[in-house]
Amino acid sequence: MPNTAITIKSLEEKGVLDEITNLISSYGINISYTHLFIEKNDVGFINLELENTGNIDSLINDIESIEAVQSVEVHGSLNDIYGKRVIIFGGGAQVSQVAMGAITEADRHNIRGERISVDTTPLVGEDDIAEAVDALSRLPRVSVLVLAGSLMGGKIVDAISDVKNKQNLIVISLNMPGGVTEIADLIVSDPIQAGVMAVMAIADTAIFDIKKLKKNKF
Amino acid sequence: MPNTAITIKSLEEKGVLDEITNLISSYGINISYTHLFIEKNDVGFINLELENTGNIDSLINDIESIEAVQSVEVHGSLNDIYGKRVIIFGGGAQVSQVAMGAITEADRHNIRGERISVDTTPLVGEDDIAEAVDALSRLPRVSVLVLAGSLMGGKIVDAISDVKNKQNLIVISLNMPGGVTEIADLIVSDPIQAGVMAVMAIADTAIFDIKKLKKNKF
Repeated sequence: MPNTAITIKSLEEKGVLDEITNLISSYGINISYTHLFIEKNDVGFINLELENTGNIDSLINDIESIEAVQSVEVHGSLNDIYGKRVIIFGGGAQVSQVAMGAITEADRHNIRGERISVDTTPLVGEDDIAEAVDALSRLPRVSVLVLAGSLMGGKIVDAISDVKNKQNLIVISLNMPGGVTEIADLIVSDPIQAGVMAVMAIADTAIFDIKKLKKNKF
Repeated sequence: MPNTAITIKSLEEKGVLDEITNLISSYGINISYTHLFIEKNDVGFINLELENTGNIDSLINDIESIEAVQSVEVHGSLNDIYGKRVIIFGGGAQVSQVAMGAITEADRHNIRGERISVDTTPLVGEDDIAEAVDALSRLPRVSVLVLAGSLMGGKIVDAISDVKNKQNLIVISLNMPGGVTEIADLIVSDPIQAGVMAVMAIADTAIFDIKKLKKNKF
């Protein structure tokens, strides 16, 4: 059954969110992800990603009949629109080269019907990169992280361990000094290839399973 | 006053979210963004981005004292960690070139203390790109969109108009046939320069105001 997303425009009244989530539960539909934009004038937008929805016309009618609700829009889910995310952190000459490899490879998969996005935050410094890695557990749809630098270790290694404990995350590192290569699933010397392999590792249309590789350094 | 983010791990019980948001309001703190990850085992993670927080120790204690709440973590806000987002849609040779320009320029600003991310979804086709543009209004921190293709018009133009009506969004288009150049704020022939200008247009450390340009085609 398909996934769907709905956006509800509603007055910010006590109990509205509860009423909506209870309604959805009563239809046996699971909410996989929610975000709320709250505007200053007491109007809020509630975005809900719904799993395994069948016909939701009746649910939409029920939500629209809540007094505080002003409108309900139905969309494709963000997962179907933007897909899995390759995340790239690092700086200097290498970060854009990794992105170029990943974007070109993602283009080749997306043109065959997949959806993969390549999201890059140019960053340097142990503390800043460690904080950005740590915050990955608060982002949706993250599938693989590529570390694009020439020296990474210390707190970055700790942050990667923490995130890997919380969720499935493939980590690819350029071949560099520092502890990150010890914790990475894959070490790649060429930045373009690192980006390409990051996409191959998560693409449904690629035959490439990192776990089946006999070595993890290229 | 600084922005802060908190992650609350809580049992999924009726009224918990209401109780938490009411508590935060009672401290006069504004919630700018919320997202929830709901796990299967009735435990949920509630991420809240808080604006203008002073000392929040007392608020954290109050939240921890709610029975269903298991833990509360305090982090930097995603806005401080990943910053403003440059979004790039398009396919083929051009999309990675726009990204390369944007990433290299963002690296130069971020190294001086800014935070700008470059998020690329390689995409082709009027319907798919229009849907991706439309969904931008459901993403946080989006500041500028770059269209990296060689023919874009029709529904893509309509989707851009809709998003521009809802929120502040700078749109940069490569110089191409199709209606998008008529609605774009800036038209740039070179893809690398289009990426660089996208970052310049939103960077606090750049002196570049698209609205002050005497022409908008380069």
